[in-house]
Amino acid sequence: MVKNFDELKSMPREKVAGKIVLFNYPFDKQMAAEGRSSQAYGKAVVYRSDGPSAAARQGALACLIRSVGGADYRLPHTGMTDYAKDAPKIPAGAVTAEDADLIANLVPQGPVKMKLVLTPQTLPDVESANVIADIKGSEHPEQVIIVSGHLDSWDLGTGAIDDGAGVAVSMETANLIQKLRLKPKRTIRVIAWMNEENGEAGSKQYAKDHEKEIPNHFAAMETDGGAGHPIGVNIKANPEVKKMFAPVANILQESGAGILDLVEHCGADIEPLEKAGVPAFSPIQDNRFYFNYHHTAADTLDKIVPKELAENSAVVAVVAYALANIEEPLPR
Amino acid sequence: MVKNFDELKSMPREKVAGKIVLFNYPFDKQMAAEGRSSQAYGKAVVYRSDGPSAAARQGALACLIRSVGGADYRLPHTGMTDYAKDAPKIPAGAVTAEDADLIANLVPQGPVKMKLVLTPQTLPDVESANVIADIKGSEHPEQVIIVSGHLDSWDLGTGAIDDGAGVAVSMETANLIQKLRLKPKRTIRVIAWMNEENGEAGSKQYAKDHEKEIPNHFAAMETDGGAGHPIGVNIKANPEVKKMFAPVANILQESGAGILDLVEHCGADIEPLEKAGVPAFSPIQDNRFYFNYHHTAADTLDKIVPKELAENSAVVAVVAYALANIEEPLPR
Repeated sequence: MVKNFDELKSMPREKVAGKIVLFNYPFDKQMAAEGRSSQAYGKAVVYRSDGPSAAARQGALACLIRSVGGADYRLPHTGMTDYAKDAPKIPAGAVTAEDADLIANLVPQGPVKMKLVLTPQTLPDVESANVIADIKGSEHPEQVIIVSGHLDSWDLGTGAIDDGAGVAVSMETANLIQKLRLKPKRTIRVIAWMNEENGEAGSKQYAKDHEKEIPNHFAAMETDGGAGHPIGVNIKANPEVKKMFAPVANILQESGAGILDLVEHCGADIEPLEKAGVPAFSPIQDNRFYFNYHHTAADTLDKIVPKELAENSAVVAVVAYALANIEEPLPR
Repeated sequence: MVKNFDELKSMPREKVAGKIVLFNYPFDKQMAAEGRSSQAYGKAVVYRSDGPSAAARQGALACLIRSVGGADYRLPHTGMTDYAKDAPKIPAGAVTAEDADLIANLVPQGPVKMKLVLTPQTLPDVESANVIADIKGSEHPEQVIIVSGHLDSWDLGTGAIDDGAGVAVSMETANLIQKLRLKPKRTIRVIAWMNEENGEAGSKQYAKDHEKEIPNHFAAMETDGGAGHPIGVNIKANPEVKKMFAPVANILQESGAGILDLVEHCGADIEPLEKAGVPAFSPIQDNRFYFNYHHTAADTLDKIVPKELAENSAVVAVVAYALANIEEPLPR
């Protein structure tokens, strides 16, 4: 049992070889309660993604990871593991926070034996698709604002918060614009991305298929943080864009969502576009409870508060419409 | 699917006969958040205890019960079912709140088919025992104050809050009295009751074995509501006892636990003594979170806050010592 990568690396190989390594890195609940749950997740999830290969490099037979999440209800949290090419591909599994504590309490009492029965398998790829719908722009139909979430979910729950919410918000954005009889000058493209969870095949394919049209991708949004109450908008773009958005922020502030934050990253599926210089946006959401449910069997529809879902749609619709009708191009 | 007993009873027998009945009665989270979680539990748990027989009386083949609890983490909550003698003993199981919602959403869409694979079995009784330890009274050793919790737990979790906490509080009460070199005049008897969960065989046997000594049972306490912060003491006794306890409440109030409440019932295992007229006591605890974990796989040691556990021991120790040394007998 180790707490982190440093402790693992400090151990002589013979202490690790032939053993099952448990990464017992606790999720920082305090950080999450303060609204920085993405950072708390980031600090912990590296053990799930990179832990197995790190353990394998020192000769471990298998790897267990303490579940990453803010609530302890004996639920395993799972997700993508990134097997490195320079290490044997050893079996890996998640243990609940409670079971990690139990193992941690047993270890000082003597050798702990475990038998792992891991049933997951990776099936062959099948054909699937992004789901795309356009509201054609009235003046610049070739210029596209993407509004998106992802269609797939991790397998334990039904994926209501990750990312049914994002798909619903994006579809409702189009619905709101139609209902209000708004005429966006640029095209608003709603996308439900396929395969975010397991390698982002859908968004990568989109970026490839539309490589030549990237300059016409005016902006891209993704909602992939649940349906928590929104308080503003993240922007990954030239800092000038934030200044240009001050009037939009004023409108959003009327409903308490007027914060504009310049960030490094707005969404996994729009990352290829971000990297190609397309200005990217996402709602800033109350994510204090997101990692209580994320990638567990409890990510189900009852976790969505309809009013908060609607608030997110409103924020995304305002931003999308502003992007569609803003006079000047956004500096890249 | 029915919401409650009334709805079931209002249905014609032919609509129920041959069907699986789901009692989809939601736990009142608002009530629990207001500190009345025992009431919220009481209102919901009757479907688990009496639902299967109620369904069977109308010809149901099997019965499902929406899990009783304040947190929805896809965890089934189970516990005792009371099969009535006047109804067929049909299979019954718990479904998580999320799965109950799913079924509720499917029902309006057409007939819902389920296949139940229920594996629990009731094994033959085995010999077990209450664990009892006395601190002998210096003046009235024959007069007994019981301080207790129960040793067994429901099977899904390890039973840290139900009722490892109560056993720990009771043992620590004896420890505190010894450490402080107090000399109780009456005997303080620490009991870890066996088999609270499944019929209270241990406490019933104790009451039977000690039937003739009931008049010498000066008082009985039980802690069986977790380890939440205590704010006072429940009293099931002649109302005069509350008045006599005012000086004790003053001492407890120095640490914020000075509330005295006259209640109907103080604990399942001390109920036979209560009924025989023995004054009964229990700590008033913060139980807002108790039913988030109770009788689920998440009832584990990490749910205990050591400081709050210690606070309960302090309150129970003060009350036990006061009972041991109070001059006058308590009116019955």
